[in-house]
Amino acid sequence: MTAHQPTAPADLSTETEVALERAATSHRHHELFSARASKIKQSAVRDVFDISLRPGLVSLAGGNPFLQSLPLEKIGGMAYKLVTEHGLTALQYGGGQGMEKLREQICEVMAEEGITDADPGNVVVTVGSQSAQDVACKVFCNPGDTVLCEDPTYVGALNTFEAYEVNVEAVAMDDRGLVPDELRRRIAEVRSAGGNIKFLYTIPNFNNPSGITLAAERREEIVRICQQANILIIEDNPYGLLRFDGQPIPPLRAGHPADVIYMGSFSKILAPGLRIGWALVPAHLQRRFYLASEAVTLCPPTLNQMLVSEYLDGHDWRGQITNYRDLYAERCLAMLSALEEYMPPGVTWTRPEGGFFVWVTLPPGIDTYPLLHRAIDAGVVFIPGAAFTPSDEPSNRLRLAFSAVAGDRIREGVRRLAPVIAEAIEAGTAERTG
Amino acid sequence: MTAHQPTAPADLSTETEVALERAATSHRHHELFSARASKIKQSAVRDVFDISLRPGLVSLAGGNPFLQSLPLEKIGGMAYKLVTEHGLTALQYGGGQGMEKLREQICEVMAEEGITDADPGNVVVTVGSQSAQDVACKVFCNPGDTVLCEDPTYVGALNTFEAYEVNVEAVAMDDRGLVPDELRRRIAEVRSAGGNIKFLYTIPNFNNPSGITLAAERREEIVRICQQANILIIEDNPYGLLRFDGQPIPPLRAGHPADVIYMGSFSKILAPGLRIGWALVPAHLQRRFYLASEAVTLCPPTLNQMLVSEYLDGHDWRGQITNYRDLYAERCLAMLSALEEYMPPGVTWTRPEGGFFVWVTLPPGIDTYPLLHRAIDAGVVFIPGAAFTPSDEPSNRLRLAFSAVAGDRIREGVRRLAPVIAEAIEAGTAERTG
Repeated sequence: MTAHQPTAPADLSTETEVALERAATSHRHHELFSARASKIKQSAVRDVFDISLRPGLVSLAGGNPFLQSLPLEKIGGMAYKLVTEHGLTALQYGGGQGMEKLREQICEVMAEEGITDADPGNVVVTVGSQSAQDVACKVFCNPGDTVLCEDPTYVGALNTFEAYEVNVEAVAMDDRGLVPDELRRRIAEVRSAGGNIKFLYTIPNFNNPSGITLAAERREEIVRICQQANILIIEDNPYGLLRFDGQPIPPLRAGHPADVIYMGSFSKILAPGLRIGWALVPAHLQRRFYLASEAVTLCPPTLNQMLVSEYLDGHDWRGQITNYRDLYAERCLAMLSALEEYMPPGVTWTRPEGGFFVWVTLPPGIDTYPLLHRAIDAGVVFIPGAAFTPSDEPSNRLRLAFSAVAGDRIREGVRRLAPVIAEAIEAGTAERTG
Repeated sequence: MTAHQPTAPADLSTETEVALERAATSHRHHELFSARASKIKQSAVRDVFDISLRPGLVSLAGGNPFLQSLPLEKIGGMAYKLVTEHGLTALQYGGGQGMEKLREQICEVMAEEGITDADPGNVVVTVGSQSAQDVACKVFCNPGDTVLCEDPTYVGALNTFEAYEVNVEAVAMDDRGLVPDELRRRIAEVRSAGGNIKFLYTIPNFNNPSGITLAAERREEIVRICQQANILIIEDNPYGLLRFDGQPIPPLRAGHPADVIYMGSFSKILAPGLRIGWALVPAHLQRRFYLASEAVTLCPPTLNQMLVSEYLDGHDWRGQITNYRDLYAERCLAMLSALEEYMPPGVTWTRPEGGFFVWVTLPPGIDTYPLLHRAIDAGVVFIPGAAFTPSDEPSNRLRLAFSAVAGDRIREGVRRLAPVIAEAIEAGTAERTG
């Protein structure tokens, strides 16, 4: 049991789940589990999924996009037309790589951010980008291999890495993202200890959970370091287009078609319930990647691909993204000003330029995991920082999501959270001085 | 390169693909591939996927369901309503296990076949049943473990097994399915050679590709053998409800909740393009299975789950299945009578009681793989038998699908195929006597 997958506190876990886990290990079938099976744990994000739905509670936990501003009438009409007029295609099996037209449109989406040389033939449509991460591990990772990532990083990627039994090694970030010298140092360190590094997994824009963005001037250097070390880069960029102000920073993939597997998603710019993501794969890796993807799901859902394609064709999706940017910018501001107003001294937080999340740091020595309990009692939910790190240490950090909740509720949530944190700081101080 | 994943003949493979494969192995990134990556090959079914679409060709290759008889207007209306009235749920993330209501309805579907004690809590909704097979391997198989299966068996399952680097050992079938004594013998054989058997993968009803059904009176015995040997059973049953006449034979899972992971799918009774399948998992294995599934795709597509749920609620789905049964029965008959009429002596075939496929056997010594070329020239496509076997030997068998093609086209396809086969038999005879 590693810290980033903490056991749910007793009252968060249902009795049934505990009983089932006991049954799993007592039954004779227990002998049949794979070595990896025991490493696949409940994500802390999922632990609080049900709790988040309790009425009255303010959930700053889940990074759900705010779908209210979508043109539902229009999308519904598209779905109707696809099924009634093109149902024999939309409801049938499709190719394992995804529909050609959608792959062409995905190249247009990527061009918005600065990837202008993408070939639709190198795009593989996947069941969300979670599935693309799974496929990347399948194609590159043997048990015991090493994967580098930011610390903190996306909990879902950590879950996938565990399922492939890889060693996850963190590279330090500062407020401008991954530190190139730290990357060099970690590569040397891991290699001198005999580690076999396969790729660097990075979320360069508005990192989940920290909200930190990798500075433009560091990007070339990061690619060059990995190139020289013969390490692939997995660039996970679901939030890139959701920058609050100014132009997007070109992805690491821009200008480096052979070095980066770029992963994108319609979950944040359209709708996660469609489960349509993609990978843009270097030409020399495309075939292996696509075949592995096909072996997992046969093909991505056809109706969903066509619906995304229709939406991109028939709606001002760029305008929709502008709406989202304005909305999330406003909510982020609401969160930052509430933090400013309510948080006790000694608490700091990031100021993201886009995305969904603010990362809050408490004084050293305070574990935010047990605080979750008290926060729920106070009527607010967050995700403890330990969920997002490959380290086994307790974390004095927590993630707050501003994406799904209106400004006044964000404010109320932070107001409820502040005394819980203040109390923990006082208790910590009392302990040290007592 | 094993026989069941034969290289496409030169003119079936595009030059680009060959070039990409060469690039993959010449680039420095080649060092980064996982051990399993090289084992994931293009499926022979996919080889002929594009060819099957050529105008004029009769495709007896793909096992696509015939969707023309679906109530598309009604399903389109449901999709419209779901997006416009429930879009905030339908387009949002959902739980990793799948929607509770759909899981309850899935239990009703399974009850149609004789599984009357299923608990929705033990159902995990997956992205097609292909994904359920992938998850089963993830949870149970270490590289080098052994999986038992019928010979022939589903090519997609073989692809998944290869991706998990398991040894696939075939158990002999006769015209009443898996032979219990053969199963006993193989278990003993594999174990005495040090093999670690994790599960028996079986398609008991109208096996893909053979069309053979496991006799009712053998089912209890098969379960008992696996129970005693502490081997799980993976029962893949996408076609079970498509029995042409009479009542369904109860699945192996019926009455054996602790011994069988049952996999079902809406691909054949509704629409494969939705990619909604499921696994009914023994209670003591449910949690591990569900978490592994979540680590692959986060959650199955919400809109698709709700659409299936609406369809089950708002349409006479049992009546629709009856329509399908009648349709496929008629097409099967068309194929059997065309085979009777056109095939030369020495060729035999199965007479399926349901499903999509007829399995044709040529005289020994004739490899059907090179015949595919000539068949395409003659205007018909099939899948060579080697695709469906874990064996490395050439196969004198081939699969014909009757599901997607109208009766007169089936007849025309068989008429075109017959001289290709007759010629091969003559050549074979000439060789032996010459």
